[in-house]
Order: sequence, then structure tokens, then C-alpha cells
Amino acid sequence: MNEKFLTQAIEQAFDCVHKNKGGPFGAVIVQDGKVIGRGCNSVTSANDPTAHAEVMAIRDACRNLQTFHLPDAVIYTSCEPCPMCLSAIYWAGIKTVYYGSDREDADRIGFSDKFIYDELALPPEKRLVAMIQLDVPLAKDLMKAWEEKQDKIPY
Amino acid sequence: MNEKFLTQAIEQAFDCVHKNKGGPFGAVIVQDGKVIGRGCNSVTSANDPTAHAEVMAIRDACRNLQTFHLPDAVIYTSCEPCPMCLSAIYWAGIKTVYYGSDREDADRIGFSDKFIYDELALPPEKRLVAMIQLDVPLAKDLMKAWEEKQDKIPY
Repeated sequence: MNEKFLTQAIEQAFDCVHKNKGGPFGAVIVQDGKVIGRGCNSVTSANDPTAHAEVMAIRDACRNLQTFHLPDAVIYTSCEPCPMCLSAIYWAGIKTVYYGSDREDADRIGFSDKFIYDELALPPEKRLVAMIQLDVPLAKDLMKAWEEKQDKIPY
Repeated sequence: MNEKFLTQAIEQAFDCVHKNKGGPFGAVIVQDGKVIGRGCNSVTSANDPTAHAEVMAIRDACRNLQTFHLPDAVIYTSCEPCPMCLSAIYWAGIKTVYYGSDREDADRIGFSDKFIYDELALPPEKRLVAMIQLDVPLAKDLMKAWEEKQDKIPY
């Protein structure tokens, strides 16, 4: 069963590669034995660096179910999620990931997944991307406004 | 100048909180002294767990410039990016992040940014999300197909 859904994710990636949508990555999201969302990497065709397979599949499943939370879903993805996609999986509340290739395989064909994992593991001051905190008091006021907001929807 | 753009990011977040779009986070992307993209957290209103401020701003800037790469842009965000957004910043090629609040501040008002950073730092087998690699040969074929593709657009 798991191999079947993973194969679907990979076949979808093949299709997207043939159609020049983006990199060779596909994902499907399954709940109660049914596919509820699909996605493939569409970075270059959609001009969207966040349009990775898992992100697209999460967006699709959430749109289909009209929710921002998928705690009962499982994701099948052709390759180990990059840190963006893995974090998106956490934010979506998905608890199980089945995958085929891994970050080393992606690295070998020229993708930055492993590099970004390595960067995130560094202390901020050692990263390639400069992280500069500015002391703007309004930032704290914003947090306070959220805390005090009566009709907020937490997630 | 930097404080001015960060203040714009925060003011945008205030506006989105008032309009119940999502959590208290806003971002602007600047290039050559001009705002080229804006975003605010829209998770709960858009039913999209990936609709964080930085992701929305990156999508907006890329749509405006018709590109999937922003190597000359700088991002200003009301709060330290979560790992999803920081990874999106890497994928977009942005090299400088200015921010107001940090992951500890976000943690105090109930957001999982710090938790997800901590999870990503763990070896996969110790994480809350189960990571299960399946041996499906088609996954390697997909990588090979990409390597051999003549008209691919790398990124």
C-alpha cells in the first residue's frame, strides 16, 4: 500500500518533468486510504521558489478539505523533504512521511536540500544568509496586540 | 532606512491581524531601495499552512518580477523567519534578512517556530514526525531522468 502511493508520487514527478514544470519531485497526501492532495515541483514554470512538491500537495489538500491542518494525513514524496517542505509538514500537522530518494541523491543531481539543512544547523552568525535583528519597539507591540486579541484563531 | 522598511513590514502585519487574515507576521522585500513584494500571514483565512508572511512576500515579489530567483533582494520581516520561511529565503537566493521579534518571542505567544527549529536539529529518527524511506527503484530512475534531460531548467 505504501509503495503504491509512493509510486504514484514518483509517476506524477515524471509527468511534471516531461511537461517542464520544474525539478524532479512529486508528492501525494493520503487520508483514510484516499489521495486528498497532489503536487509536483513547479518552481521554474510558476516562478515560485516555494512551489516544491510537498508544499503544492499540502496546499492542494488543504484547499480540497477547506482546512489549514491535516493531522490525520500521511505524505508520500519522491525525495526526502527539504527543510522548507519538512517545516511545512510540521505546520500542517502531518505526522508521517514516506519518501524514496534522499537529500544526498538530490545533492548529486544539483539541488540545495542538503546545503540548506547544513546551513540551518549552523548558529545564525555563521550562515551564508545574514540575519540582522533590529530594535524596533513596534515589533513587541505587534506580539502584544496578538496576545490581547479576543477573536484570534490560533494555529 | 532599514528601520523604515521593517516598520512597513510590522504595520502590514497589524493590518492583517485587524482583518483576521492570520497570525501577527508581516514581511516586505526590497530591491534597489524599492518594495518589490509584500506579504502577511494568511494561514487561517486562506486555509494554507504555508501562507506565512515571508513565503507570501517571496511569491509576490517573484510574480511581480517574473522570476524564481531574487539574488539582489533583501527581506524585512516582523519576526525571525521560521525554518520553512528561512529555507524559502535560501531557495529564493535572498542573502540578507532584517527582523524584529525572534523565535523566543513567537514561542511565548503560542507559535511553533522554535519547536520546529529544535525538531529539525534532531536526527530524523528522534523527531516527532516519522521519516520512513522506502526502497522503490523508480525513485532512482526519476533522478537519472533529470540528469539526462537535455532541456531542463536548473535552479
